[in-house]
Amino acid sequence: MSEEQQALIRRLRSIEGHVRGVERMVEEGQYCIDIIHQTQAIKRALDKLEHELLSNHLASCVTTAMRSEDVNERERVIGELLEVFDAKNKI
Amino acid sequence: MSEEQQALIRRLRSIEGHVRGVERMVEEGQYCIDIIHQTQAIKRALDKLEHELLSNHLASCVTTAMRSEDVNERERVIGELLEVFDAKNKI
Amino acid sequence: MSEEQQALIRRLRSIEGHVRGVERMVEEGQYCIDIIHQTQAIKRALDKLEHELLSNHLASCVTTAMRSEDVNERERVIGELLEVFDAKNKI
Amino acid sequence: MSEEQQALIRRLRSIEGHVRGVERMVEEGQYCIDIIHQTQAIKRALDKLEHELLSNHLASCVTTAMRSEDVNERERVIGELLEVFDAKNKI
Repeated sequence: MSEEQQALIRRLRSIEGHVRGVERMVEEGQYCIDIIHQTQAIKRALDKLEHELLSNHLASCVTTAMRSEDVNERERVIGELLEVFDAKNKI
Repeated sequence: MSEEQQALIRRLRSIEGHVRGVERMVEEGQYCIDIIHQTQAIKRALDKLEHELLSNHLASCVTTAMRSEDVNERERVIGELLEVFDAKNKI
Repeated sequence: MSEEQQALIRRLRSIEGHVRGVERMVEEGQYCIDIIHQTQAIKRALDKLEHELLSNHLASCVTTAMRSEDVNERERVIGELLEVFDAKNKI
Repeated sequence: MSEEQQALIRRLRSIEGHVRGVERMVEEGQYCIDIIHQTQAIKRALDKLEHELLSNHLASCVTTAMRSEDVNERERVIGELLEVFDAKNKI
């Protein structure tokens, strides 16, 4: 695996551990608001992971597609970026 | 554990499995955009979990606090709700 | 009008002026990314306005409903709060 | 003005009218939750406007920059896209 992949795996393992921590909080009957704070923190960790994924994607696949002479390919990567952006906005 | 707790645990186990699925996608070098779609799906699953947590919280702790004569306690639960709301908005 | 209403109106007038500013930017053909930064700033101003509206709502209508003996009324305000929360999450 | 600019201006005028509608709701002392529903609708209209702006941006400025031989220019547009994406996530 590349260094980038290993860094992503480390982030994902940490998120997985965070989810298991929330399972324990629920089992122990901890305070709802404290649990919600943790699920919000997990979503922020996923946001940071998506930043890394998108950063790699723009520097590799998008740059290659944009520099090709294949107009369909260029439109495809643009469409995918807009879709990811809309999912944030959940338009 | 109560039925509510068991339902939350089931949701969390499913989220945990989803995160492990994303780890495999990264290891296998799958397409960035497909991986981002999965992390966005995990965030939506966390949103639904927070809905359940908040619903339980409003029907139990918030209702009890609001019906008590303790003004500080009422202000405390209101402050917590605003804080959860702001984290969504990330004000 | 109450002081609270006047404060909300001031915020809304400022947001309205901000939107007109973005219209000018579009007319002048300014850079897309600079325009997007402004629309994102307007959404943050709306987030803060919603915080004020929700804060007033929790301290008045919600507190009154929760302290009433009318169970339907209590369930109604809880349902409305969850709906506002879900719109954030756009579940 | 181009047709694209005119379409954006129409959307912005409609948003401006929507904000003025919310001002009237506040003046008339309408129900908080009804007002919040309107501010959430305004944010969704801004999300759609940003989609249009970003779509134009990707098809014009980003494509041009990506196809140029200027590596700094390519890195600049990638950095801007990540920044817009992060503002959604508010990382």
